[in-house]
Amino acid sequence: MNLEEYIRIVPDFPKEGISYKDITPLLQSSEALGFCVKSFASQIKSEVDVVVGIESRGYFLATLLAKHFNTGFVPIRKKGKLPYKTLAEAYDLEYGQDELEIHIDAIKPGQKVLIHDDVLATGGTAKAACNLVERLGGEIIQCNFLIELNFLKGREKLNGVEVKSLLSY
Amino acid sequence: MNLEEYIRIVPDFPKEGISYKDITPLLQSSEALGFCVKSFASQIKSEVDVVVGIESRGYFLATLLAKHFNTGFVPIRKKGKLPYKTLAEAYDLEYGQDELEIHIDAIKPGQKVLIHDDVLATGGTAKAACNLVERLGGEIIQCNFLIELNFLKGREKLNGVEVKSLLSY
Repeated sequence: MNLEEYIRIVPDFPKEGISYKDITPLLQSSEALGFCVKSFASQIKSEVDVVVGIESRGYFLATLLAKHFNTGFVPIRKKGKLPYKTLAEAYDLEYGQDELEIHIDAIKPGQKVLIHDDVLATGGTAKAACNLVERLGGEIIQCNFLIELNFLKGREKLNGVEVKSLLSY
Repeated sequence: MNLEEYIRIVPDFPKEGISYKDITPLLQSSEALGFCVKSFASQIKSEVDVVVGIESRGYFLATLLAKHFNTGFVPIRKKGKLPYKTLAEAYDLEYGQDELEIHIDAIKPGQKVLIHDDVLATGGTAKAACNLVERLGGEIIQCNFLIELNFLKGREKLNGVEVKSLLSY
């Protein structure tokens, strides 16, 4: 399957000059979703205890990966959305900063954690997510992404973590 | 399985006097997730062509339901997040209004659509989601929810649509 055919390029979104990679055509295809899950799974040799998805487009495939590996699912959310006690990590936006949070009881020390998001761009949110998982004692077995934007070099920010992506631009 | 044991009640979130129903313990359990999917599926007699999830907590179970029914998944998102051409519907907030959007090519006329969100509260967002699906020509076969807050009477706003929930408070 040529997954690239399921990605719609939307010019000038969210602002001029940005060529946005729209994954909704992929989501609309059960075959493409199944292909993604299988492709991700084939790149994972370790056991998986928990799958973490980053808000909000990371949730789509992360829940399906949790189902595939028969594990629970943990959402990492933007600041203020998780109701219970949390850990927080700041990450850089184009202007200023924002924070990601995880529930303090989301991961047990020693659990093998797979982190998923839809796109690896600058790596800021992925790095913050890795920090949260490690602060809870989780062992990150891989960060995976549907799409990697090579020119933004996000992979360099995730030094020491295994990074996989299905498509790169 | 007593699903209620997987819901954590967080007092005074997001503000004083509100008893928040935290579904993250349920998400952390692959058994509870599987039980939810089976329970939802047992209440659906029609064929399903598309599963729609409402941003963002609706995505968790909606993607798993799409997997179960072997269909594609469509996200309904908050204003400004979907990159392609959209339809929009306003819904009331406590103060003011906000909008939900769907891509104009998300649903084909005549498709049988299952709409999912985590919580049915006042029914405002669910009603807006139903309107979006119907404007695209979709046939709503059911709106389902993990949790229904009976005292907010959201079900009354969804007149004419089949509504199911697994837990009610």
